[in-house]
Parts: sequence; C-alpha cells; structure tokens
Amino acid sequence: MARHAEGTAADLELSAVLHALGDPVRLALVRDMAEHGESQCSPEGLQVPRSTLSNHWRILREAGITRTRRVGKARMMSLRRDDLEARFPGLLSVVLAGRDR
Amino acid sequence: MARHAEGTAADLELSAVLHALGDPVRLALVRDMAEHGESQCSPEGLQVPRSTLSNHWRILREAGITRTRRVGKARMMSLRRDDLEARFPGLLSVVLAGRDR
Repeated sequence: MARHAEGTAADLELSAVLHALGDPVRLALVRDMAEHGESQCSPEGLQVPRSTLSNHWRILREAGITRTRRVGKARMMSLRRDDLEARFPGLLSVVLAGRDR
Repeated sequence: MARHAEGTAADLELSAVLHALGDPVRLALVRDMAEHGESQCSPEGLQVPRSTLSNHWRILREAGITRTRRVGKARMMSLRRDDLEARFPGLLSVVLAGRDR
C-alpha cells in the first residue's frame, strides 16, 4: 500500500479532516465503513452518481481518513481509525455518535 | 437576539457544523472565542482581510456555532457552547484539543 501517499498520523490536519467530514454524503460513507469495516466505491443505498462518489472518496483519502485496498480491479476503502485516534483522540467517536436528522 | 434565525440546538446539523469548523481561519476564530469568551469581528493577530472574515463569521453563525451580540455599532461573537454540547456531546472539546501544526 502507498503508505507514503497517505502520510502518517502526524500529517493529518484537523481542518482538512473536519472539512472532509463536513458533507452528508461523506459522513454516510464514513458511517458505512465504521459499520462494515470496508466499503466499496458505491455502497448500496446511496443515490449518488459514481463520478460524484469518486470525488468524495478522494477528499476522504487526501484528508487521511481512509485507506484503499485493491482487490483485483475493485477498490475497498476503510477508515484509518488508529491514525485518526492517535492524532485527534475522540473525534471519530463523537462524529459517529452525532446523527443528522 | 434573533433566536429564531439561529435555530435551536436540535437544528444544528452535524455536516454543516463540521464544514464550518473545517477551515484554518474559522478554527482560529473558534479558539479565540473559546479562550476569550467573546470575539470582535477582527481578532488581533489574524492576518485576514475583513471581508473574508465577514464570510467566515457568517458560515459559523449559519451553522449554529456562534451567536452575535450587538454593542453599539460593534458586534461581539461567542460560541454557542451549551447548544453544541447538547446536540453533539464532546465535539467542541475534541476540536479544541486538536491542534493544526
């Protein structure tokens, strides 16, 4: 995996992480990963065009929130829980506990 | 104060709150209010044009993060700590504890 491209826990910037989390679709992707461990590019139940989703995944990845695992031609995304917890303790838990109505 | 325009704690939307916090200048404004209670439109030490700051204050206010108190011609902004804590317990503490490097 391209560890270098994703940076280390210390590279995660709070404002970039909050910005990445500050969107309803990206929050839904984060909740999906939190629940299922890994998520496909287009999780079931999300009515969002694939090109739009690609952009959301890019923002999550560049903020350091997700890592990507290639399985053949597919990509599986997961949360960088340990890195996020090390850099911003409690943030992910607080966000996952908060529900948009 | 225009309580109606700011909505109640239940109206705060997580994604809007995270988006509003997801900017280095707005984080600096939030930290300034957390430290000093109230903040003027242009806090000392922030090298940001006043028009840009006005936009940042608007985003914070519309997300429900701040309230505004008029003092003569001046406006003083403060954090809606209780409302934020009621709606998203722990969020503000986690954000204030996280430092951009």
